[in-house]
Amino acid sequence: MTEQNKLENGIKENGESVVEEDIVNPWEVQSSSSKGVDYDKLIKRFGSSKVDQTLIDRIEQITSKSGRKVHHFIKRGLFFSHREMHRILDLYEQGKPFYLYTGRGPSSQAMHLGHLIPFIMTRYLQEAFDVPVVVQLTDDEKFLWKDLTLEECYELSKENAKDIIACGFDPDKTFIFSDLDYIGSCKDFYWNMKRVEKCVTFNQARGIFGFGDSDCIGKISFPAIQAAPSFSTSFPHIFNGRKDIPCLIPCAIDQDPYFRMTRDVAPRLKFQKPALLHSVFFPALQGAQTKMSSSDPTSSIFLTDTPNQVKNKINRYAFSGGRDTIEEHRQHGGDCEVDVSYQYLKFFLEDNERLEQIREDYSSGKMLTGELKKELISILQPLVATHQEERKKVTPEILQQFMSIRKLPCSDKYPPPDPTASSGKKKKKKKNKVECAKDNGDAVVSKTAAAEAPTT
Amino acid sequence: MTEQNKLENGIKENGESVVEEDIVNPWEVQSSSSKGVDYDKLIKRFGSSKVDQTLIDRIEQITSKSGRKVHHFIKRGLFFSHREMHRILDLYEQGKPFYLYTGRGPSSQAMHLGHLIPFIMTRYLQEAFDVPVVVQLTDDEKFLWKDLTLEECYELSKENAKDIIACGFDPDKTFIFSDLDYIGSCKDFYWNMKRVEKCVTFNQARGIFGFGDSDCIGKISFPAIQAAPSFSTSFPHIFNGRKDIPCLIPCAIDQDPYFRMTRDVAPRLKFQKPALLHSVFFPALQGAQTKMSSSDPTSSIFLTDTPNQVKNKINRYAFSGGRDTIEEHRQHGGDCEVDVSYQYLKFFLEDNERLEQIREDYSSGKMLTGELKKELISILQPLVATHQEERKKVTPEILQQFMSIRKLPCSDKYPPPDPTASSGKKKKKKKNKVECAKDNGDAVVSKTAAAEAPTT
Repeated sequence: MTEQNKLENGIKENGESVVEEDIVNPWEVQSSSSKGVDYDKLIKRFGSSKVDQTLIDRIEQITSKSGRKVHHFIKRGLFFSHREMHRILDLYEQGKPFYLYTGRGPSSQAMHLGHLIPFIMTRYLQEAFDVPVVVQLTDDEKFLWKDLTLEECYELSKENAKDIIACGFDPDKTFIFSDLDYIGSCKDFYWNMKRVEKCVTFNQARGIFGFGDSDCIGKISFPAIQAAPSFSTSFPHIFNGRKDIPCLIPCAIDQDPYFRMTRDVAPRLKFQKPALLHSVFFPALQGAQTKMSSSDPTSSIFLTDTPNQVKNKINRYAFSGGRDTIEEHRQHGGDCEVDVSYQYLKFFLEDNERLEQIREDYSSGKMLTGELKKELISILQPLVATHQEERKKVTPEILQQFMSIRKLPCSDKYPPPDPTASSGKKKKKKKNKVECAKDNGDAVVSKTAAAEAPTT
Repeated sequence: MTEQNKLENGIKENGESVVEEDIVNPWEVQSSSSKGVDYDKLIKRFGSSKVDQTLIDRIEQITSKSGRKVHHFIKRGLFFSHREMHRILDLYEQGKPFYLYTGRGPSSQAMHLGHLIPFIMTRYLQEAFDVPVVVQLTDDEKFLWKDLTLEECYELSKENAKDIIACGFDPDKTFIFSDLDYIGSCKDFYWNMKRVEKCVTFNQARGIFGFGDSDCIGKISFPAIQAAPSFSTSFPHIFNGRKDIPCLIPCAIDQDPYFRMTRDVAPRLKFQKPALLHSVFFPALQGAQTKMSSSDPTSSIFLTDTPNQVKNKINRYAFSGGRDTIEEHRQHGGDCEVDVSYQYLKFFLEDNERLEQIREDYSSGKMLTGELKKELISILQPLVATHQEERKKVTPEILQQFMSIRKLPCSDKYPPPDPTASSGKKKKKKKNKVECAKDNGDAVVSKTAAAEAPTT
C-alpha cells in the first residue's frame, strides 16, 4: 500500500488530520496513543453502532431463556461495535433462521491468543442461538499477500482449522472451509464471487482498501471472495439454495471494510445484508499501539507456548501500567487502561467480581505489577494447556468431518425455495440484472461503503 | 475503456501516430483502411512471427505423411501470424505431446461465420496432429462485460457448445468447458488462476488490456482466467497432473494480449509457454474496417440463417469491389482486396484453381459482382445448412459427453509425473516461490508482454 493510499484510507469523511487518526484496515492497525485505537472515534468513522447497554440487556434477556448469560466479551465492551444486531435478535425472537460467518487468513501455523477472540465469540453465539457456523480460511488471500506457495497456504489452513475446532465448535453445525479447496468445489460460491466482482470498480476497491496500481490483480478482486460467504446461497449443501437467510459476522473491527462493501452491494444482488459484531484488537504484549504479529514471538502468547514460555513472556514483555518504584506505586496506583496484563485479564478472567477487585487493588496501589502478572499467568497457563489438549484430540478424521462439504443435520431447517414461486418471478427477474459497476452518480458501491450510516 | 486507455493501447513501442494505427484488442478492432487491419504492421507491433513459406512448407511436409494437406486457411495467409509454431512442430516430430486450446465468449446465441474460423482450424489441427483439444467458454467474462445474468451466460455457453461440436470435433479428444461450471469443479484450475493473478499488477493489466479505474474488479482479474487453460495442470483429468505439456492456441489476433501476458508469466511459474497461431479477422459484410457484430443482423451471415437469408444478405449487404457501371467494370475490373464476397470465398472455397480463376476473372472484369456473389451464395448456402444439420444431431447426451469432466481415452498417453522425482525436487522448490508482482525493474510481466520479441 502506498503512503498516498494510507492517507486516502485515513481521512475519508470529516477531513480530520490524518496524523492524529488511527489507521485501521485489514492489513494495518496503527495508533499513536498508548491506550490503543480510539474505538468511539472508529464507530463514528466507520458508521457502525455502539454495543450499548440496551443491546447488552436485550441479549441478556434472550439468552437467559436458555439459561445463559451474555458473554463477558460483550458485557465488557470487547465486542464494542455492531451493525444490525437488533435485526438478528428480532429474527431470533421470531423463530427465523440466521447463521454465523467468521474466518481467518492462515498466514502462519502459530496462532496466538488474539486469534482466538472471534472464534470464542462465534462459538458462544453458536451455542446461545443454536445456529450453524461457516468459517472461511482465506488461504488464497495469504498466497497473494505473502511469500508462500499455494501448497504451503493450503497446509496452514488445515493446521489452523485444528485450532479453531479446539475452540469447541459443534461438528453438526459447523462448516470450516479453505478457499483453495472449496472454491474449486462449489459452483454457487464462484457465482456469488462473480456477482460481487461485477458490482465493485477498481476505484471503489482503492477507496475502501487502499489498493494501488502496483498491487497484483488477484489482490484487487479478493474482496469479492471474502464477501461471498455472507450470502447463504454460497453454501447450497447447508442452506439448500435459500437466499433469504442472513448472517451475522463476529470479527475484529479491521475486517469491517470487507463487509461495508458487502453490505453495500447486497441489495443490488437481492441478497440479505450481513450483520456484524466487531471486537477491539487484542493488544500485543508490548502495548496497545499495534496488533500482535505472528512473526514476532515476543509480541504475543502463542497457542503452542509451554507453561514456562507463557510465564516468562508475561513477566518479561507484558507492558506494565505500574509505577517506577514500589513506593510510587503504593502511593499513586497503577494504570489499568494501559497495563497489558490487566487488559488480558479482561479477555480471559471470567469472574466479574475478581476482575473488579483486581482493578481496584491495582489502581489503588494495593496490588503490585508482579502480583497482577502472577494472576494472569495462573489463568493463561491452564487456558493454553487446555487448548493444546483439545487440539491434540482433533484427529485427521475430525478435521475431515468439519471440512467436508456435507449436509448438516440442521440443514432440514432450511427447506429449498419453492420452485413454482421462483418460476413465477422469472419474468420479473430480467429487470434485475446486475449491471456492471460504473463510477458515476449511481455508483454501486456508494460512498457509504467507506462509512455506513448506523442502521439500528 | 477510456479514450486515454485506447491511446495507451494504441501506441506502445515505436511512438507512431495513434490515429494512423489500427486498434486491435479483445474488445475492439478498428481500422481506417478499407482493406482492413494492416496485418504486417500488427506482427511488428505485437512481436509475433509471420507464417512464412518455410513454415507452410514444413507443415505441408509433416502432414503429408498422414496423407493430409496444409489447411487452406494457412496456405492463403488467413492464419498469418504465430508464436513458436516451429517448437510445436519439433515436438510433434519427436513424438512428444502437445494439446490445442481455443475458446469463445458466449455473448449471444447467434454465432456467425466468423466465429467458426478458429474452430475449423482447431479441428483440422486436432485431426492432422492427433492431439486433444480444450475449448474454454468464458461465460464468466461475458457476465462481467455484458448486461446478462449468470444464468443467461451459462445457458449461452451450452448453446454455443453445440455449434462448436457441430464443427466435427472428436469426442474422444475434446473437452469443452464453461468457466461458470468448471472453475467451481476443478481445484487445479482455480490454483492456476491464483498463480497468474499473483504475477500481474493492475498497472500491467492496464498497459496490456487498457483497463480503467472504473472497470469492475472482476474484469481486472479476468485475464488470469483466460490464461489458465494454457497450462496442462489445469486439466488433471486429461493430463494427470503433468505440467510439461505445452499447448498451441489457434485464435484471432485480437486475443493475443491475453497470451502475451500468459507467455510472460509462464516461466516464473515453471510452466510451458503457449504457442500461438493467429488468424486475421473475418470481415463484416459491409467491409473489412470492422469486425462483425453479433448484435447487428445485417453485418454477418449467422449460422441460423435460412438459405434465403444467406442469399439476400450477400446480395444486399456484401460490400463490392466492383465498378459503378458494367461498362467500367468490364474495362477496369473489380478489386478483390476490398470485395467482401471474394474475401469470404478465400475462407470457404477450398478449390484453389477455382478461386484463382475467380480472382483473375473478377480482376479483369470478365466476372461481374452479381456472378461473384452467386458463386459465394452457392457455397455458403449448403455450408450453413450442413452446419444446421450437424448441430441438430448434437443431443443433450452428446453435449453432456463433450462437457463432462472425464478421463479421455488419450489420457493414457500422459502418465502422471514421477512422485519420487517431484519429492526430490521439493527442497529446491522453496526457492521458486511465486512472489507477488511488483512494479519495479524486475516487473513480472515485462514490457515485452506488450510486444514480444519473435522467438522462432
